[in-house]
Amino acid sequence: MKAIGLYKYLPISDPESLVDLELEKPTPAGHDLLVAVKAVSVNPVDVKVRSPKAQKENPARILGWDAAGVVEAVGPQCTRFKLGDQVYYAGDITRPGSDSEYQLIDERIVGRKPTSLDFAEAAALPLTTLTAWEGLFDRMGISQQPAQNQGKSILIIGAAGGVGSIATQIAKWAGLTVIGTASRPESIQWAKEHGTDHVINHRQSFAPQLKQLGFKTVDYIFCLNSTDKHWNNMVETIAPQGKICSIVEMHNPVDLSALQNKSATFVWEFMYTRSMYQTADMIEQHNLLNAVADLIDAGKIKTTLTKRITSINAANLRQAHALVEQGSMIGKVVLEQF
Amino acid sequence: MKAIGLYKYLPISDPESLVDLELEKPTPAGHDLLVAVKAVSVNPVDVKVRSPKAQKENPARILGWDAAGVVEAVGPQCTRFKLGDQVYYAGDITRPGSDSEYQLIDERIVGRKPTSLDFAEAAALPLTTLTAWEGLFDRMGISQQPAQNQGKSILIIGAAGGVGSIATQIAKWAGLTVIGTASRPESIQWAKEHGTDHVINHRQSFAPQLKQLGFKTVDYIFCLNSTDKHWNNMVETIAPQGKICSIVEMHNPVDLSALQNKSATFVWEFMYTRSMYQTADMIEQHNLLNAVADLIDAGKIKTTLTKRITSINAANLRQAHALVEQGSMIGKVVLEQF
Repeated sequence: MKAIGLYKYLPISDPESLVDLELEKPTPAGHDLLVAVKAVSVNPVDVKVRSPKAQKENPARILGWDAAGVVEAVGPQCTRFKLGDQVYYAGDITRPGSDSEYQLIDERIVGRKPTSLDFAEAAALPLTTLTAWEGLFDRMGISQQPAQNQGKSILIIGAAGGVGSIATQIAKWAGLTVIGTASRPESIQWAKEHGTDHVINHRQSFAPQLKQLGFKTVDYIFCLNSTDKHWNNMVETIAPQGKICSIVEMHNPVDLSALQNKSATFVWEFMYTRSMYQTADMIEQHNLLNAVADLIDAGKIKTTLTKRITSINAANLRQAHALVEQGSMIGKVVLEQF
Repeated sequence: MKAIGLYKYLPISDPESLVDLELEKPTPAGHDLLVAVKAVSVNPVDVKVRSPKAQKENPARILGWDAAGVVEAVGPQCTRFKLGDQVYYAGDITRPGSDSEYQLIDERIVGRKPTSLDFAEAAALPLTTLTAWEGLFDRMGISQQPAQNQGKSILIIGAAGGVGSIATQIAKWAGLTVIGTASRPESIQWAKEHGTDHVINHRQSFAPQLKQLGFKTVDYIFCLNSTDKHWNNMVETIAPQGKICSIVEMHNPVDLSALQNKSATFVWEFMYTRSMYQTADMIEQHNLLNAVADLIDAGKIKTTLTKRITSINAANLRQAHALVEQGSMIGKVVLEQF
């Protein structure tokens, strides 16, 4: 089968940073599905894992943690999917990724592909959707009932990015008032199109901008960009008893006691926690991907696909990595068809 | 009216560190009750606020954030209490404290005194109970239904102290498996008497001790002692998706990203948040003090009073502060009768 991988961790401009491979097609065991991959998307995690370092791989390492495809074979313990089912999923960072013609994936973290989307539109979603949904509902404990969220506000730092675009839609669906941050005219426009009630600029202090919009504080903050840089702004603007969730690691130690008087929460969302630790509630990823597929097919949430590249090969994947690496992607880039 | 206060922040051995005063009896307005104070307890916060510094006060500052007493007068907006009601409460750090013959207190943070306890036994409870209940249920979001907590574990760091003794009882009532930390034979004994299922020593690494008890990780950690010192132990032993709540400020910046792979939560519990920020849900402190009064009168939770001093005056209050300042108090010290 075809696949794209790396032996060395090189700058993306180097043709050897991602190379075309021919590998043996794997066989599913246990809870694994064998999926024929039809489309993959590229996330910041791909760039982060691929970032230049001395480490070497042999056999080659396969990246890619977002795919849509068709079930080609099932392991003996599978009960949720059958041959020919169309699926979408983000996968497990401890296993070979989705940049591969066929991939093994635990069915407990796989969802049914929304029927109203094609493979590319579906492949744009799983990783960001899992991250957004878990961040909002599982980590910050926000209710999924709009009536419970009346008058509650959330600030999404980086609202136009991959996670931000879907988090905005999900937060609106849950009835929150959404304030997004963006800085360029095109990202402000995109954030508004996806449902933000207000947009502020993350290059300026948050508090005066929020005050101008009539907010003294916000009930929730979802930080999708440079947690270090936004720490003081978050401490200042989070409400008493409010919750901050971040997906971006910090590079410096932090004054956590700054949140003490407000009895505020800081919680991490890391999409791989459930699969990495094989938690008892791993099946929640299956459930939430299905719930989002229903919301999409009901027209309540839309794909965040913005750029489509055909076909899936090393040259095109390097191009997609380069786009994501710039850090100014709006929405998601997807590669389709092997 | 009699009161005890300070003009200067001095070592507790200095007779001027806390002095007897004669003040005018205040008049309640708005939501305030005027309470005739019958008993007060001393908490670490009293020692912390009183700690030696150059700052001076005039008029004198009244400490004390734990009292039981009788309603003597009510403000025009009060609806929950009437003259003669017996009450218990912890109060508001932004206002004069309870070391005073009469005290003004917002009825929304006052509960009915458990009828099965005398004033001293009741005065031992409010601050620690509010802290424990809010930490477990409001901050960490633990269910109050034992069926929901089956198989779930909590580690309480400092189980024999004031908050630890009541937190242990409340956590057991909620159906959690409670592992307490203690180090001296008498504090280990006390922790067991209050319902801990297991006791480990906080002077040694947690992980090997937990492993010996059959726990790889714990679902919740309630840190009531030196958050800095226990940080690495907590990072190591918290379960994936687990929650850590602390009430003790950190003196150094911390590597928060150490919790990222586990998608773990860190949340502060500060009992004064609701009254300090006059949050919309301030009334929850009234509700929870009443709920605990019911649990006490039903024999499900007991007072944590261990030392009783008569009467309430400066000399005796200095003695109580000195006891708490040593940091090795088991349970609570209370002064009764002006």
